[in-house]
Amino acid sequence: MDFVSRLTLINSITGYKPANLVGTINDNHQTNLAIFSSVVHLGSDPALIGFVMRPLVAERHTLENIRETGCYTINHIHFSMAKKAHFTSADLPRESSEFDRCALTAEYLHDFRAPFVKESKIKIGLQLADLVPLAINHTTLVIGHVEHIIMDRNYILPDNRADLETAGTVCIAGIDTYCKAESQASYPYATTDNIPLSFD
Amino acid sequence: MDFVSRLTLINSITGYKPANLVGTINDNHQTNLAIFSSVVHLGSDPALIGFVMRPLVAERHTLENIRETGCYTINHIHFSMAKKAHFTSADLPRESSEFDRCALTAEYLHDFRAPFVKESKIKIGLQLADLVPLAINHTTLVIGHVEHIIMDRNYILPDNRADLETAGTVCIAGIDTYCKAESQASYPYATTDNIPLSFD
Repeated sequence: MDFVSRLTLINSITGYKPANLVGTINDNHQTNLAIFSSVVHLGSDPALIGFVMRPLVAERHTLENIRETGCYTINHIHFSMAKKAHFTSADLPRESSEFDRCALTAEYLHDFRAPFVKESKIKIGLQLADLVPLAINHTTLVIGHVEHIIMDRNYILPDNRADLETAGTVCIAGIDTYCKAESQASYPYATTDNIPLSFD
Repeated sequence: MDFVSRLTLINSITGYKPANLVGTINDNHQTNLAIFSSVVHLGSDPALIGFVMRPLVAERHTLENIRETGCYTINHIHFSMAKKAHFTSADLPRESSEFDRCALTAEYLHDFRAPFVKESKIKIGLQLADLVPLAINHTTLVIGHVEHIIMDRNYILPDNRADLETAGTVCIAGIDTYCKAESQASYPYATTDNIPLSFD
């Protein structure tokens, strides 16, 4: 299989992926914004979130900034801003910010240095907790501790789940396709006692 | 925040998550099937996929089996089987298989030892490539090398992307909500030359 076909296939084969923008800043106040589909929940207590950084230019700026400041933001991508978010993946030189080039707005939370994305309705401020090098393919798992969650109360469901559907959060299929999701069913916490005897 | 509210919030805050069943077998031919929402693309060439294993009973069986045989399968969850897939998360004793208790069918590929899920339309056979302990919260990143991809040609789009929508693959919001996704837009590979001058 040629390189592009292979990349397209393998990027789609794990199923739908979360759609997030990672916002950073360096000590010279230069901001950076990059799209990631590899954000993954690592644990709730302590609240830890990971994402995978490949050795690419755009992502290197993100990693350098995180090393410098020790913090970053994860911002949900909604359908209304998906096109802008997509183009943050272009390899811009360090001195131009994806916020400006992609018409997204940096906003700041009092003493937290990394920029949030104003247009995003669910955003997380994280403190760098660990950088785990994955020797097998020279990627890095960036692990952050959740310090802040910023969202309107309207986007919190009665059970404390973030209401992704009302917020309009998208998911990603493959490398370039943005999808809307719709809840179909919820099931109770599974125990040995409540497994149905029949699934018909 | 109480434990359950916190767990519910943090599990939903990263956005939509992929929905997969990991199938394994041990040297005594006991099969195991467990649901994971932490599958993540690590690279296309070589084709590497990761998932995060927490130190829980159900997941320990999966990890023990992977250590024993060096292989496992990742099987997409579709809406038609979401309820069965959900209940694989109950803490069954080692001697009972989630395949039996949850009415899913194990199927095998000639010389590949781990069981695939017959009901799944997109399935991957992986060889264990690395186990990376994440010291920060005692989880493990399991990294596998893609050896087999099994899907009907109907589920491959012209550009070689897996057609998640036609296959009926679901995604997960939080810990217990299964969602259908629908493609809304695709954008071209982003370069410094094709960033739109205006996003209006």
